[in-house]
Amino acid sequence: MKQETFRWRKAIELLLRKKLDLFLLDDPISIFYLTDVRLSLGRLWIGREKKRLFVDGRYFEEAKKKANCEVDLFSEERLQEFFLSLDRKEIKVGFDSGAMTLLSYQKLSQLKETTAQKGIQVTFEALENPFRALRLIKEAEEIDALKTSAVICWKGFEHICSLLKEGVSEKEIAWQFERFCRELGADAMSFDPIVSFGENSAFPHHRPGTALLKQNDIALIDLGVMVDHYASDMTRTIFIGTPHPKLAEFYSIVQRAQRKALAFCKPGERLGSLDKAARDFISSCGFGDLFVHRLGHGVGLEVHESPSISTEGEDRDLILEAGMVFTIEPGIYQAGLGGVRYEDTIVITEQGYENFYSIW
Amino acid sequence: MKQETFRWRKAIELLLRKKLDLFLLDDPISIFYLTDVRLSLGRLWIGREKKRLFVDGRYFEEAKKKANCEVDLFSEERLQEFFLSLDRKEIKVGFDSGAMTLLSYQKLSQLKETTAQKGIQVTFEALENPFRALRLIKEAEEIDALKTSAVICWKGFEHICSLLKEGVSEKEIAWQFERFCRELGADAMSFDPIVSFGENSAFPHHRPGTALLKQNDIALIDLGVMVDHYASDMTRTIFIGTPHPKLAEFYSIVQRAQRKALAFCKPGERLGSLDKAARDFISSCGFGDLFVHRLGHGVGLEVHESPSISTEGEDRDLILEAGMVFTIEPGIYQAGLGGVRYEDTIVITEQGYENFYSIW
Repeated sequence: MKQETFRWRKAIELLLRKKLDLFLLDDPISIFYLTDVRLSLGRLWIGREKKRLFVDGRYFEEAKKKANCEVDLFSEERLQEFFLSLDRKEIKVGFDSGAMTLLSYQKLSQLKETTAQKGIQVTFEALENPFRALRLIKEAEEIDALKTSAVICWKGFEHICSLLKEGVSEKEIAWQFERFCRELGADAMSFDPIVSFGENSAFPHHRPGTALLKQNDIALIDLGVMVDHYASDMTRTIFIGTPHPKLAEFYSIVQRAQRKALAFCKPGERLGSLDKAARDFISSCGFGDLFVHRLGHGVGLEVHESPSISTEGEDRDLILEAGMVFTIEPGIYQAGLGGVRYEDTIVITEQGYENFYSIW
Repeated sequence: MKQETFRWRKAIELLLRKKLDLFLLDDPISIFYLTDVRLSLGRLWIGREKKRLFVDGRYFEEAKKKANCEVDLFSEERLQEFFLSLDRKEIKVGFDSGAMTLLSYQKLSQLKETTAQKGIQVTFEALENPFRALRLIKEAEEIDALKTSAVICWKGFEHICSLLKEGVSEKEIAWQFERFCRELGADAMSFDPIVSFGENSAFPHHRPGTALLKQNDIALIDLGVMVDHYASDMTRTIFIGTPHPKLAEFYSIVQRAQRKALAFCKPGERLGSLDKAARDFISSCGFGDLFVHRLGHGVGLEVHESPSISTEGEDRDLILEAGMVFTIEPGIYQAGLGGVRYEDTIVITEQGYENFYSIW
């Protein structure tokens, strides 16, 4: 990756802005973003000059080969050595309190005493989602990778549309999507495909089961794949035959709600406005209570990442900038009847936005 | 599931033993084990008489339909109502400090003030892996499910053995395993298949790539699938042609190390003895430093669960009982040359143990 220097620079700028000496990062995805090493467990310490990745025996040789920073084996001794190498009397460490368990925090706190004996004062500062800014704006290469992922996802969707016939099961459709996309080059699904027929579509996160497609059913299909580490995500709701009039009404409202939100998709807008625009519209139609989730979420190395698009959420005051990639996915769900969701993934551009999916 | 009452009883016995009023559980797998509801995010409060599962809007309707306990929507108000319904002045809550983030803990702590205003004193007790005991001993039905999972995994392994020919890529073999098992009824992989050829086998957690199989290569293959919620896990190392003499030596040592550990696999033995037996043997052969991971781990609803089989780990003093299911997987890895691992999953029986895999 060419962008490593730029990425490290972003991390260090963040460190300086927060007036810290070290960041402690243990989210494997952000570790991959910065170091180019993919592991299931590791700890990255980022200082102004020094960075060191700690891993266990399983990953040591591989990490040494691939990482663009120092690599060491997990051990209190080696960590103490790293602290000493910083040559500072006081070390202020920032970490993500939403990503660290209480147990890990308690163990880290014990560390303070040992380092104090060596004349170094270590303090820990709990931060809420501090690394969000790191991966929020996608680089050109990342946007290309996200589009490639979206193209494979869409091709898989077109493939399973041809299989949506009476008598086919949710599970079979989900598997045919996965198989088609994997053979087309997807490395994995970005989440378990959601394929729900009839009343099952009222459960936004239904797991595909043995339900068979019937004439005049609704089929809600939410899909995404991973290609070269980047995720995709889209949802379409399809009528097989003649829709129930209420579900047809939901469909029309959800599509219009999406357009209300898309109208705010340009640099300078507040993120919360997007959710509010869609939610207000659905409420004005009388179905606000049935839109039971946020409007959308960031997509990148993870299928669910920052920002969170909701009227009240932590990112509501975030200002849109070119390079942000997220979903817009309003939905209306009525238990016993069914649900409709319509989801695209878009990237904010200088002029407005670009939709990764053509309109179905 | 017929076992629900029995499972709840185990949880409540644990609660009483720890002298607590409530358990707070937010691990989705244990929530599924107890409530039969599968979700990605939820919180289960378990009291002596009352149990309530809190979920968000995405899962509410589904959880109400499936859960064998009360279901409610996440909200501080509803949680306060639950506390009030317990009709106690003091409520002592135990939770897993290794599963709760510091941020969640801080938010929970704020709750204490609000409940204090209502005359209820809530205290939180951080416990290390308190729910381990819950899923440690598998019921007969679970063992059957684990065997079914193992059978599908083994069939997939036999299938890819027939494809191991010069010029095939790691990625292709990994995908052919996945495809074969999925079409045979596996719901998912229990982890991304590890297929590593030649020197790549020196990385215990290698990700299959474009490397092609060559004559006289070694192929390390670590596989597992999920069938009806239960995981499987096995590893074989295969020589294509004539092995490098050092790797042939590793192979023989690893197999004998596994047998040393298996000799301790019967009720009444200490878990740490298993790791020690295998490790001592590998060390006596001069390769102790190259056995870079623990001997094994529990397998059940998760592919990696309690117990952890290592000489020094938290479970070293656990006494083996019939119904425990875990892997025995010694390995020797030398960077630049290659690695060998041999892994079976076994269940402890009254007489000793049963191996889920035939010997290759």
